[in-house]
Amino acid sequence: MNDSLTSPQHFVNQVIGHQPDTLNKLIPVNTQGHGIAPVNIALSKYWGKRDTVLNLPMNGSVSISLPGLGTETKISLKPTAKISSPPPPIDHITLNGKMLKASDPFCIRLRTFLDLFRPENHIFHINTHNTVPTAAGLASSASGYAALVLALNDLYQWQLTPQKLSLLARLGSGSASRSLYSGFALWHKGIQADGLDSYAEPIETQWPELCVGLVKINVQQKPISSTTGMQNTVNTCDLYQAWPQQAEKDMQTILKAIKQKNFEQLGQTAEHNALSMHATMMATWPPIVYWQPESLAAMQTVWQLRQQGVTAYFTMDAGPNLKLLFLETQKPAITQAFGEIEIIQPFKVE
Amino acid sequence: MNDSLTSPQHFVNQVIGHQPDTLNKLIPVNTQGHGIAPVNIALSKYWGKRDTVLNLPMNGSVSISLPGLGTETKISLKPTAKISSPPPPIDHITLNGKMLKASDPFCIRLRTFLDLFRPENHIFHINTHNTVPTAAGLASSASGYAALVLALNDLYQWQLTPQKLSLLARLGSGSASRSLYSGFALWHKGIQADGLDSYAEPIETQWPELCVGLVKINVQQKPISSTTGMQNTVNTCDLYQAWPQQAEKDMQTILKAIKQKNFEQLGQTAEHNALSMHATMMATWPPIVYWQPESLAAMQTVWQLRQQGVTAYFTMDAGPNLKLLFLETQKPAITQAFGEIEIIQPFKVE
Repeated sequence: MNDSLTSPQHFVNQVIGHQPDTLNKLIPVNTQGHGIAPVNIALSKYWGKRDTVLNLPMNGSVSISLPGLGTETKISLKPTAKISSPPPPIDHITLNGKMLKASDPFCIRLRTFLDLFRPENHIFHINTHNTVPTAAGLASSASGYAALVLALNDLYQWQLTPQKLSLLARLGSGSASRSLYSGFALWHKGIQADGLDSYAEPIETQWPELCVGLVKINVQQKPISSTTGMQNTVNTCDLYQAWPQQAEKDMQTILKAIKQKNFEQLGQTAEHNALSMHATMMATWPPIVYWQPESLAAMQTVWQLRQQGVTAYFTMDAGPNLKLLFLETQKPAITQAFGEIEIIQPFKVE
Repeated sequence: MNDSLTSPQHFVNQVIGHQPDTLNKLIPVNTQGHGIAPVNIALSKYWGKRDTVLNLPMNGSVSISLPGLGTETKISLKPTAKISSPPPPIDHITLNGKMLKASDPFCIRLRTFLDLFRPENHIFHINTHNTVPTAAGLASSASGYAALVLALNDLYQWQLTPQKLSLLARLGSGSASRSLYSGFALWHKGIQADGLDSYAEPIETQWPELCVGLVKINVQQKPISSTTGMQNTVNTCDLYQAWPQQAEKDMQTILKAIKQKNFEQLGQTAEHNALSMHATMMATWPPIVYWQPESLAAMQTVWQLRQQGVTAYFTMDAGPNLKLLFLETQKPAITQAFGEIEIIQPFKVE
């Protein structure tokens, strides 16, 4: 599954259009780059990589971004004394106002990514804030890498297109490719080995009545990372064989549902797609079950609501939380059933 | 999936070795047939039919019967007045001491099966007891049809082999084919269109240390029948494509594990197989989720026990209950974690 011939550095150079040795002539020391990006909820999911180095997915996916929830990042460059041997440069990374230790797994992962954009003998100073309330139970790696790439683009004044920025964000975290846009976004799986055709682009449809409800479930067990989880699935789950094809089919159905504003088709396909993704996780060995008992109870509530005529569906990512999908008219029924959940209307101008 | 050329009546006649018109010459009026059969727990599951008329499975399966839990059935024949037109004959069916109404779905299903063995102008009187305690949460249709077929064999004095009785029981309920035996049983999927090679046979291995723990979960929602459930899965679940092959592979692994008394391999494969079956259900539309929140909590307990070094696994059928698999040495740890669950040692002579 990992037959990449392109190194991440070569990929980045191709996208940016610079040769590595010219990067050093363009160092904007002491200026600051700035980027903001939203979180996104996949309506048809990304699960499984065909190339783990370049983060190339087995299948395309469609998402909706949530305005107001995401990441804001500021970045600047500082020269360091020339060091001919390790230790490597230690970037200064502040997350939500707190300086992180260099040994923090988040820092280690980020540093590997930043190395792709690092001039010789320089470190980055990064100040990043997640505007995702902890209570929302949303992953921030998608908005995080998208905001970081936007900040780098601002810092270096590359003036890259969103499509190229999407390629760079994908290298940090697959789903980050979709967080370059507000509204609906489509991440093409691409077919090239060099990964240059696997980017997201926006879908123009506006749908003001569409609501996303965030049902937060408390986590009792430490979950497996989605990167490890999807590799285990690809390697040990027989049922996964049919997933890439189903996911591509679901993606097409959802694109059509968005275009036609056919909410039932959107909701049904999104819920079926999410349950199918979780099915591939459960059929992995050792089993991957992100659900908590309370997740299942919330699903049962959604199914009971549907039996009562309330048109609501759910989707779930690699975690225990549910994201409800419904139209504005169902807001009272949803609030009654789920209490004070956070409801977002991605296209509604407040 | 239902391209059967053989009618159930033709199938029965072939198995019994009688022509339909000779059946009437063999009527044992007022004698009584008697049969007892155990429930069985599939270690690799039956899910999906390739022929819904003859109950031919997509894949083979392996089970363990639970001694002392099952069905006892007595049957006799009574002549009725000749009736040339409907209403059809109404059998007298008593279940656990209670006479059932003719309109009871259980009676309707049973009558259709009994029609295959009915001489003209006769009704059956059936008295059947499930020795499965309600608290065990076990399905009784497997032991029920196996006991009924044994009682018919006794009534008519066919003296059929267990293999032929297994064929007849299969026609009533697929998993009943495995309830003709104590201990481990293997149900061959068969390849013939006439269904005569799809029967169960016993596996001779004795394994006195093997324990089955019955974890009963309360059901809040009315579940979908397994017959309807598996048809919906076959028809709408893309991931199901890979199931028959995985199930056959799991069956071979479990047969090997039984032969070698390799408990870890048995447990791992059984749990993976059960989760994969449930995965195909969840990836069906509308979704089929037999789990309750408490089922998931019990699974989490099993996974925590394993992390603590307790070698225990679970399997689940088309319902919310867990059946734990472990060896006798783990009994104290299991009892401590699950409280007073019923533990059965299928091969232990008390």
